[in-house]
Amino acid sequence: MNYNPAPAKIGDTLEEIDTPALIIDLDVFDSNVDRMANRLYGSKSRLRPHSKSHKCPSIARRQLDAGAIGVCCQKISEAEVMVEGGIRNVLISNQVVGQKKCDRIAALSKLAEIAVCSDSLLNVEELANASLRFNTEINVLVEIDVGTHRCGVLPGDEALALAKLIEKTEGLHFSGLQAYQGRAQHMRTIEERRKAFEIVEDAVRMTVELLKENGLTCQIIGGGGTGTFELEAASGLFNEIQAGSYIFMDADYGRNLDSEGLPVSEFGQSLFVLATVMSTAVRGQIVVDAGLKAFSVDSGLPLLADFSDLEFTRASDEHGIIQLQETGLEPSLGQKIRIVPGHCDPTVNLHSWIVGVRGGVVECLWPVSAQGANF
Amino acid sequence: MNYNPAPAKIGDTLEEIDTPALIIDLDVFDSNVDRMANRLYGSKSRLRPHSKSHKCPSIARRQLDAGAIGVCCQKISEAEVMVEGGIRNVLISNQVVGQKKCDRIAALSKLAEIAVCSDSLLNVEELANASLRFNTEINVLVEIDVGTHRCGVLPGDEALALAKLIEKTEGLHFSGLQAYQGRAQHMRTIEERRKAFEIVEDAVRMTVELLKENGLTCQIIGGGGTGTFELEAASGLFNEIQAGSYIFMDADYGRNLDSEGLPVSEFGQSLFVLATVMSTAVRGQIVVDAGLKAFSVDSGLPLLADFSDLEFTRASDEHGIIQLQETGLEPSLGQKIRIVPGHCDPTVNLHSWIVGVRGGVVECLWPVSAQGANF
Repeated sequence: MNYNPAPAKIGDTLEEIDTPALIIDLDVFDSNVDRMANRLYGSKSRLRPHSKSHKCPSIARRQLDAGAIGVCCQKISEAEVMVEGGIRNVLISNQVVGQKKCDRIAALSKLAEIAVCSDSLLNVEELANASLRFNTEINVLVEIDVGTHRCGVLPGDEALALAKLIEKTEGLHFSGLQAYQGRAQHMRTIEERRKAFEIVEDAVRMTVELLKENGLTCQIIGGGGTGTFELEAASGLFNEIQAGSYIFMDADYGRNLDSEGLPVSEFGQSLFVLATVMSTAVRGQIVVDAGLKAFSVDSGLPLLADFSDLEFTRASDEHGIIQLQETGLEPSLGQKIRIVPGHCDPTVNLHSWIVGVRGGVVECLWPVSAQGANF
Repeated sequence: MNYNPAPAKIGDTLEEIDTPALIIDLDVFDSNVDRMANRLYGSKSRLRPHSKSHKCPSIARRQLDAGAIGVCCQKISEAEVMVEGGIRNVLISNQVVGQKKCDRIAALSKLAEIAVCSDSLLNVEELANASLRFNTEINVLVEIDVGTHRCGVLPGDEALALAKLIEKTEGLHFSGLQAYQGRAQHMRTIEERRKAFEIVEDAVRMTVELLKENGLTCQIIGGGGTGTFELEAASGLFNEIQAGSYIFMDADYGRNLDSEGLPVSEFGQSLFVLATVMSTAVRGQIVVDAGLKAFSVDSGLPLLADFSDLEFTRASDEHGIIQLQETGLEPSLGQKIRIVPGHCDPTVNLHSWIVGVRGGVVECLWPVSAQGANF
């Protein structure tokens, strides 16, 4: 029921795109997609990118073409959209709670290879009920808390107990471990990320061995994100990497530092909100037509891609305020400028279309088919 | 192209609503709608509620039934949705910049009573071009900066110069002044709000008199929000009040204080995000299935409607973390709880449906037809 017209047509120039619009630089995007595929090539870890970042089957298919084995989703509704978009292998890297939602997992399991995570006995029971009702089998991973303190049972005995329950429950198949350290993704220095990952590594190794001693094999050991994927991949423990943001990047990931203390530059900024200068009436500032309904500010205010010396200082629902400097370039009324969002995932979720631009010309319009798919 | 199924059916109980869902308590909502209408009844100020809060023609029609003279929008796309939904009188309380967007204003002016704000010569020229192209007349208000320092020319001579230009430009009609003090809405004490309004009042009075001396009449003098509307109404200057949030309220408005230093309680909290407890595995906390994609955190984290002693401490894309207390009630796995969003407007924009509940039963499903309408 939302407002659906696309902000551009194929062949439009950048200037002709209506604003605010979510645009990607296709050269940078392609390079990011291929780079992650190449980085994991030859390692034990296969890439299962997280589709919660893009919510877009067109992008998921592009990632599979580059070698990904499937995608992650965070919600059953996202998984339904991905399967409808032709994706045949989906891991819901999250708990799905409630009998009705579990029924949807069972139903979807008849159409594609689906797996889901769990961290409670009650949820295992719901999943089993659904599986029996739909006469199918549901693949279930045990999520362990490896330091994020969000969801997940304790590594070791708690994980073993839940895995055993899943394995012996009719209609369910124990598929492995979910071990994502979300907080580590945005720790600024490589030392902090390594230290956080040591805890992850110890917890996963110990739990995998304990499961093995008890006759349980982990088909999937999944985790990792754009901030730490090389640690998971190098560990030899993780066979699936769940990075998502690497295709787009954002201002917050831009603050992560490498081993030399420089901003991590392996993946380029491909995602922007295109905005128009809508007011220059108040002295010392300009106002753009993009605010809290065009980008998310949970990880800080956006940056300006084309005017790095100017500061984005305030955002209201539909306005963004940019302070001008005494000297330097000054965007003029009506001019279009590119904004780097603070956090890519919730920003993408605000838009119905991703406008792909190459060489200043619109080359594709990708529907964000799972926009708002959160239940 | 977004994910469109409604999270409930008419007649469902609260427990049967899928989550996360945007719900309103219809008794409180009705009371808020009627109370604002009654508060302005008999004053010189008529109510033109801001539809950017709800983006929902069903609610706009309800407000008109209660006596509102029309609605405000912030974007031409919102105005298009409102006119399509049967609203015949729309003020775009904002600048609309660029020839293509101005053309849409001209086209819409042939279907309904439309007005728009301006704060620049260039924009006046674009609006005039559009008006002539579509052989219509566009109503234009001059926006003046009354202390928010966002958009708007200076009160006094600058406003007069722009008003004169509009009045003499073929195809345009000078309709009055837009004088909204956005910052004042959330100043915590009534003294701060009064002080901010003194500046508004002086600026508007001086400008209106100057315009009058120059033969220009203000058909509309608009401004005011949920935090200050009684000041605008009492001034005798403003003939249109543009409050929007009063129908829903939010955690941030809940921090405004009245003359006795108590939270302003005139309007009740009618808007909630309904969420489900999805994990209780990590000790000392619970996790709900609503995060940054279900509510906006630009004005702080949400509150818990039914567990006021518990604190919402962290939100990620799809998760909300709630710390438990040593003693007290504890929501259990699978339980549904109501969350009060920090900021209502950008929260509503994340949802495709508003689920209206009365006495625990779903009574209406209102499409958020202008969700994502930001260009």
